[in-house]
Amino acid sequence: MSDVIPSQPTFELITLGDELLLGLTANGHLTYVGGQLRRHGATLTRNVTITDNADAIAAQFRESWARAQVVITTGGLGPTCDDRTREVVAAVLGQELVFDPEIEKAIRDRFRTFNRPMTENNLKQAYRFADGEIIPNANGTAPGLWYAEGDRVLIMLPGPPNELQPMITDQVLPRLAKLGLLEEGESYVQLRTAGIGESALETLLQPVFDRHAPDLEVAFCAHQGQCDCRLSAVNDGLNHAELEKIAAECAGLLGEDFMCFGHDGLAKVCADMLRKADRMLAVAETATGGILASSFTDLAGATKFFAGGAVCYSNQSKMQLLEVPEEILMQHGAVSAENAVAMAAGAAEKLGADYGLAITGFAGPCGGNSENPVGTMFLALYSPQGVWSKRLRYPGPRPTVKRRAVNAALDWLRRELMKVKNQPEIPARSIGLDDW
Amino acid sequence: MSDVIPSQPTFELITLGDELLLGLTANGHLTYVGGQLRRHGATLTRNVTITDNADAIAAQFRESWARAQVVITTGGLGPTCDDRTREVVAAVLGQELVFDPEIEKAIRDRFRTFNRPMTENNLKQAYRFADGEIIPNANGTAPGLWYAEGDRVLIMLPGPPNELQPMITDQVLPRLAKLGLLEEGESYVQLRTAGIGESALETLLQPVFDRHAPDLEVAFCAHQGQCDCRLSAVNDGLNHAELEKIAAECAGLLGEDFMCFGHDGLAKVCADMLRKADRMLAVAETATGGILASSFTDLAGATKFFAGGAVCYSNQSKMQLLEVPEEILMQHGAVSAENAVAMAAGAAEKLGADYGLAITGFAGPCGGNSENPVGTMFLALYSPQGVWSKRLRYPGPRPTVKRRAVNAALDWLRRELMKVKNQPEIPARSIGLDDW
Repeated sequence: MSDVIPSQPTFELITLGDELLLGLTANGHLTYVGGQLRRHGATLTRNVTITDNADAIAAQFRESWARAQVVITTGGLGPTCDDRTREVVAAVLGQELVFDPEIEKAIRDRFRTFNRPMTENNLKQAYRFADGEIIPNANGTAPGLWYAEGDRVLIMLPGPPNELQPMITDQVLPRLAKLGLLEEGESYVQLRTAGIGESALETLLQPVFDRHAPDLEVAFCAHQGQCDCRLSAVNDGLNHAELEKIAAECAGLLGEDFMCFGHDGLAKVCADMLRKADRMLAVAETATGGILASSFTDLAGATKFFAGGAVCYSNQSKMQLLEVPEEILMQHGAVSAENAVAMAAGAAEKLGADYGLAITGFAGPCGGNSENPVGTMFLALYSPQGVWSKRLRYPGPRPTVKRRAVNAALDWLRRELMKVKNQPEIPARSIGLDDW
Repeated sequence: MSDVIPSQPTFELITLGDELLLGLTANGHLTYVGGQLRRHGATLTRNVTITDNADAIAAQFRESWARAQVVITTGGLGPTCDDRTREVVAAVLGQELVFDPEIEKAIRDRFRTFNRPMTENNLKQAYRFADGEIIPNANGTAPGLWYAEGDRVLIMLPGPPNELQPMITDQVLPRLAKLGLLEEGESYVQLRTAGIGESALETLLQPVFDRHAPDLEVAFCAHQGQCDCRLSAVNDGLNHAELEKIAAECAGLLGEDFMCFGHDGLAKVCADMLRKADRMLAVAETATGGILASSFTDLAGATKFFAGGAVCYSNQSKMQLLEVPEEILMQHGAVSAENAVAMAAGAAEKLGADYGLAITGFAGPCGGNSENPVGTMFLALYSPQGVWSKRLRYPGPRPTVKRRAVNAALDWLRRELMKVKNQPEIPARSIGLDDW
């Protein structure tokens, strides 16, 4: 990957919390903040995770504040005694902490809304820097703090992700964009592809890139059977509309391997196509054990396109839930094209869905045989046009095999759904739906 | 949480990789390394994530090496041109990089085993520090590097988790223990509890803790309906056997709220009990959409106790997969005790399992009604003794509601399985099993 261009503003993220260093909680703030800055054309230069210890916070903040143009801290703004970031940072900045009655009112209102009594220690959260401002928090009691000194900006945010994330997107990013520290919209155009390797992708698109060579920067990111391609302008040589035009040309060249522009995942792309075509999907899986189903149920409003799924570990479950004939299991085994087909068709037919998607295989580390070693996965797809099966084999540890198989199945469904446009005559099946 | 005791050796982790700062990959190394050190009585003092840029690596390594007793780096040891950690760190240390024919042999052997041609850039990985050693890598081509200077230790590890993790547990931790920098075994005894709040837990156990007050340190960690309690010795006042005795006394006082010693999750605890009792489980879920099933299928050897599950989004799927009577859905709705009971019984009976566990509810953000608002979840448990339902309500965002409901269901099953010991007369049902 390319080195950071030194003329860009530097961003440092200080993530506070013993639970991160003790390995009790993953550092999701790094992933979130890093990703959001990237989308808006800025690069996180450094992330430091330290303990809640006051001396450690002071030393690290002093160092980052001397070095970076924008410092973001997360955590340690809450009501309890180990929440000391506000006080420690105020001391380093030489800023007085002043009590702000408006923050107090917001805290009291919040407790009233939830019908809970407010303990006095919550008022600790009503202090802000004398020369600073607050960043209102719609989902918690501790507001964020904003402080600027010269051309440097300090942003302090509370730790809970459901509080921090909307504060970043709704307040912090627009404000930083106004200051010219990042771009208001997305700084690049991303093409997502599936089913094509990174080198084949590059080879296919290189002639397009070459035509815009001095003004266009291209970055690839491959992950589990997918590959993203980000196009951005160098030195203001191309505007966003021009980037979009280049991306559209690439998409045209890619054909079915083109998945979407932006950030949607495979399940979301399939879901949108199912919804648009008014079609329902059912799934059936063995070794992937619920990951295929949950990739759809994680999407809001899944009842509109997702009928349900079966996780069939035992042979009896395949026979009972999906009416897989016992003969198929006896003759071909559970890890076979025949069983995959029976599962896909069984799921679609039992659940009255238009499409059925099935995965069965040996994810490892145990299982497998000489004919179908560990990593062998059979996929099957049932559609109004028929039912097919595919055999695939993935190297790697169990979670990788599972993820790759799910992505391959989703990509197959996506390609099948692309054909729907050309077959409008097939009526959608109607089925009863719940509304969550 | 308690502040770091300054007399302990300091550990710093430098995680390298633009993909971490760009938000493309989560920093799992922090969670893993931090957790492993904690288990062995050491505390990670700081984690810094920086870009692959050579100047940034050099500056950060110089700083950490001057400050910490043990520095661990991850990433940047591979064969390509953006893997430059080895070279940059050698320059800072003033160490020559020497070609090691034994590493070359291991790399060539690895390519031979996988029948792949070796490109010449792979030989970059055959260099080590002149005064250093290597940490063999069983799952990849890049060995780790070990370097000691005075009482300081530098450990450099490759980035892929399946390479790094066994290198830590099998080689790095035992070696650091030999140097007296951490403990060989686990430094504390952990009790895991479920279904009891942190404050109730503390109140119940405080009399025990008080009796060992000067020698015993207690730490609590609450997460999604569970609470862990870690007991450790202060100033060598208690040995490990004494800690275990105290923990056993606490477990006795906790009764059914005691889940296990150590680190197992709820699903693993249930799985072990099912296996021991030779009983099978089936699950059925709506809003949790496959999380309940995958909490079991994530465990190796799940076919021995897990028959399968149904993810029933549509009413038709409940009727077709689990034979939930249409009258129940019409009269009581899908989010009802009656439907939960029908799903649990249907799953167990259809799949020939001894136990059936079901979850249905409104996980939000949409759905819900005045009687059963968003966050309402009905659980049901079918066992050889009968079938019951429970209504619960959780505040919070959709992923929290789902996780809490799954944990509550697992804990209920766990409590039910504890009764099995007293009822040995019920014969296990036999069903056909696949072997993955």
